[in-house]
Amino acid sequence: MERLVVSYELRCERGESAREKAEAIALEQTVELPEACVSAAIRERVVGRLEKLAEGEAGRWRASISYDPALIGGEVGQLLNLLFGNVSMKAGIRVAGVVWPEALLAQFGGPRFGIDGVRQLCGVRGRPLLCIAVKPLGLGPRDLAEICRRFALAGVDLVKDDHSLADQAAAPFRERVARCQEAVEAANRERGGRTLYLPHLSGSPRAVAGRARAARELGCRGVMVCPLLAGWETVRRLTETSGLAVLGHPSLSGGFFAEDHGISPEVLLGTIFRLIGCDGVIYPNAGGRFVFTEQVCAAINRRLREPLGALRRSFPVPAGGIDVARVPEWVGRYGSDTIFLIGSSLYATDDPFRTAAEAIEKLAQSG
Amino acid sequence: MERLVVSYELRCERGESAREKAEAIALEQTVELPEACVSAAIRERVVGRLEKLAEGEAGRWRASISYDPALIGGEVGQLLNLLFGNVSMKAGIRVAGVVWPEALLAQFGGPRFGIDGVRQLCGVRGRPLLCIAVKPLGLGPRDLAEICRRFALAGVDLVKDDHSLADQAAAPFRERVARCQEAVEAANRERGGRTLYLPHLSGSPRAVAGRARAARELGCRGVMVCPLLAGWETVRRLTETSGLAVLGHPSLSGGFFAEDHGISPEVLLGTIFRLIGCDGVIYPNAGGRFVFTEQVCAAINRRLREPLGALRRSFPVPAGGIDVARVPEWVGRYGSDTIFLIGSSLYATDDPFRTAAEAIEKLAQSG
Repeated sequence: MERLVVSYELRCERGESAREKAEAIALEQTVELPEACVSAAIRERVVGRLEKLAEGEAGRWRASISYDPALIGGEVGQLLNLLFGNVSMKAGIRVAGVVWPEALLAQFGGPRFGIDGVRQLCGVRGRPLLCIAVKPLGLGPRDLAEICRRFALAGVDLVKDDHSLADQAAAPFRERVARCQEAVEAANRERGGRTLYLPHLSGSPRAVAGRARAARELGCRGVMVCPLLAGWETVRRLTETSGLAVLGHPSLSGGFFAEDHGISPEVLLGTIFRLIGCDGVIYPNAGGRFVFTEQVCAAINRRLREPLGALRRSFPVPAGGIDVARVPEWVGRYGSDTIFLIGSSLYATDDPFRTAAEAIEKLAQSG
Repeated sequence: MERLVVSYELRCERGESAREKAEAIALEQTVELPEACVSAAIRERVVGRLEKLAEGEAGRWRASISYDPALIGGEVGQLLNLLFGNVSMKAGIRVAGVVWPEALLAQFGGPRFGIDGVRQLCGVRGRPLLCIAVKPLGLGPRDLAEICRRFALAGVDLVKDDHSLADQAAAPFRERVARCQEAVEAANRERGGRTLYLPHLSGSPRAVAGRARAARELGCRGVMVCPLLAGWETVRRLTETSGLAVLGHPSLSGGFFAEDHGISPEVLLGTIFRLIGCDGVIYPNAGGRFVFTEQVCAAINRRLREPLGALRRSFPVPAGGIDVARVPEWVGRYGSDTIFLIGSSLYATDDPFRTAAEAIEKLAQSG
C-alpha cells in the first residue's frame, strides 16, 4: 500500500539536532524503542521513514516521515495516535500536513451529505447558507422553541443548539428537541420555508445513538456534535449510520493549535473532521473572539472542499464572533460554498430576527 | 448545589485587561454571549462567576471562576467543555486547578479497583509494582506471547500491550490476546505467580466493548485504554461495566500541556482520568524522553491518590524512558503506591528478562 506521509514542523532548541529529533519521531510513533533494539525486519516494515528534512527559518525544520497505513488498522483513534499520540508529550513538534493514500481514505466513509446534500436538505443553491445558534443556555424548551420559530420565520437556513446544551434539567433533550423541531416545522409551513433545526448530541456513545434516533423520529434532518467531547469513533458511527447531516463543533480542539506544537487546524478540523464524516465543520473565524488568522481559515476551507479520495466535500462553517454586518465581505473571501454561523453579534442587535432576515437577503444578493 | 470552582491561569498581553479576560471566560464557557445580551435571571443562574482575581508574576494572573455543576448534566464531555471547551481556542488560558463539589463527584463512579483492588489482583502488598510493555509493534501473536511468558516467569506484576497495538493484521486482537493470556497463565502456573496481562483496547465504542468482553472471556483481569483516542465516555462505560481493571494511557494528551495554555497535567491525567475510572494512569515521567518536570509528576501522583469524594485512589504509573537502574531512586521519591512502567531501557539491556527479575527484587527490597 502507498505510504502515509506526515509533514512535521520541528522547533529545535540550541544544541538539538533536527535529524535526531525527526528520527526519534519515526521510532516513537511506531515501536517506542531505540533503533538499536529493533531488528532489521521490524525497522523495514514498521518504523516510520524519514523521507525528507529541510531547514526553515530560525531553528525551524520540516521533516517528512512516512508510515505504513496498515499500522492504523482502519481506526480513527489509531490514526491520531500515529500522527501525534506520544510525540504530543514532547515539545516543538507540529503536524503541519498529511499526504493521504487513496487506500487509507477508502476506509473512511466521510460525509454522507456533504455540501451538495446539505444544500438539498435546505433547498438552497447558488448562495452561502446562514446558521444561527439558539441562545442562551439556561432557557427552557418553550423559550428555545420560540426563538427557533422566529429565526425560521426570518428565513434562516439552519438553526442550531449551543454545544453547551446537553440533557440538563433546564431543557431535557427529548422535550427540547420535540418543541424546537415542532416550532421550526410550524414556521416552515407558515412561510413555505425549509429551515433545519439541528440539536446538539452529547453524552455516552449509547446516549448519542439514542438521541440521534429520537431526533430523527421527531423529524430532524441534521444534528451537531463535538468530536473531541463525544469521541472520534462515536461521531464516525453517527455519520455512518444515523441518516442525519452532521455539523462538527471544535470545542476543546484549541489545545492542539499552539504555534510550534500540536496539529495544524487545517489537518484536524479540515481533514480529520471530514474523514469522520462531518458534513460541515464549525471553526472560529478570523477577526472574532478567537485566534485563527485569515490564512488558517482559508486553509481549513481548502481542506474541507478539496478533492480527497471519494469523500464528499464538507461545508466550512466560520463562526465565533462573525459580525453580521461583515457577512458580505466574508462571502467575497470565502466563496458561496460556506455556511456562516452567527451568534452573539445578532443577539446584540435590537431585533435579532429582523437582522437575520436582512442577512439572508444580503446572502441571496451575494449568490 | 455547591459550585464547581475552576482556577484559570491567565497570560495577559500588553494592554489586555485580566479582569475583562476572566469575565469573558465566565461568559464564553456558559452562554457564549456578551453580558449585555443576557437577562439578570440567566446571569444569576447560568453565567460563571468571577470569584477571585489575583496578579502573579510577569503578566500572569490567577482567576477563580465558579460554575453551577448542573450545567454539566453528569456528562464527562460537558465537564471538559465547561472547563476548557471554547476557551481552548483563545490564547493564554490554562486550567490550573479545580475544586470539586461532592455532589458532582458522586455522579462519577471513579475506579472500580483502585490501588487496593489492583494490588489484590496482583497479590502484591507493601511494595511498588512493575509493569512491562511488550514490544515491538510488528511482531505476530506467537512472538508477543513468548515475550509475555518470559516476563511473567521473571515475576513482573503487569505485562501490557503497546498502545499502538490495535487489531492490525499482523497481530489481530483476539488471537493476540488469546495467546498472550495463555502464555502468562502457563508461566503463572509454572512459577506460582500472579502476573496480569493487559491488552490494549481501541476502536469504536462497540469494538471496545466487544474486545473487553473477549479479553474477560479469555481470562484477562485488566486492560489498557487511551481516553483521548477511544473517547471519554467509552472509557467511563468500560470502567463501569466491564469488571476489568483499567490502565489509562495519555496518548494525544500532550496537546493540552503548553506552559501558558491548556489544562494542567495534574487536572487532566490526575483527576479527569480518575473520574472516568482509570485504576492506574500512565504518564511520561521526568528525566525520560518527555517533558514533564518532577514537580508536575508529583502533582499528578498527589491528585491520583488524594481523597476525592468517595472515589477510590488510582495508581500513578510513571513511564516513558524510566531507566531500570534508577527505579529504587524513584521509589524513594514517589512512594510505594506506584506502578513503574519500564519499556525501552529494559529492551536495551542484554537480557531484558533477567533485568526485569532484578528490578522486581529491588522493588521487593524497597518495600
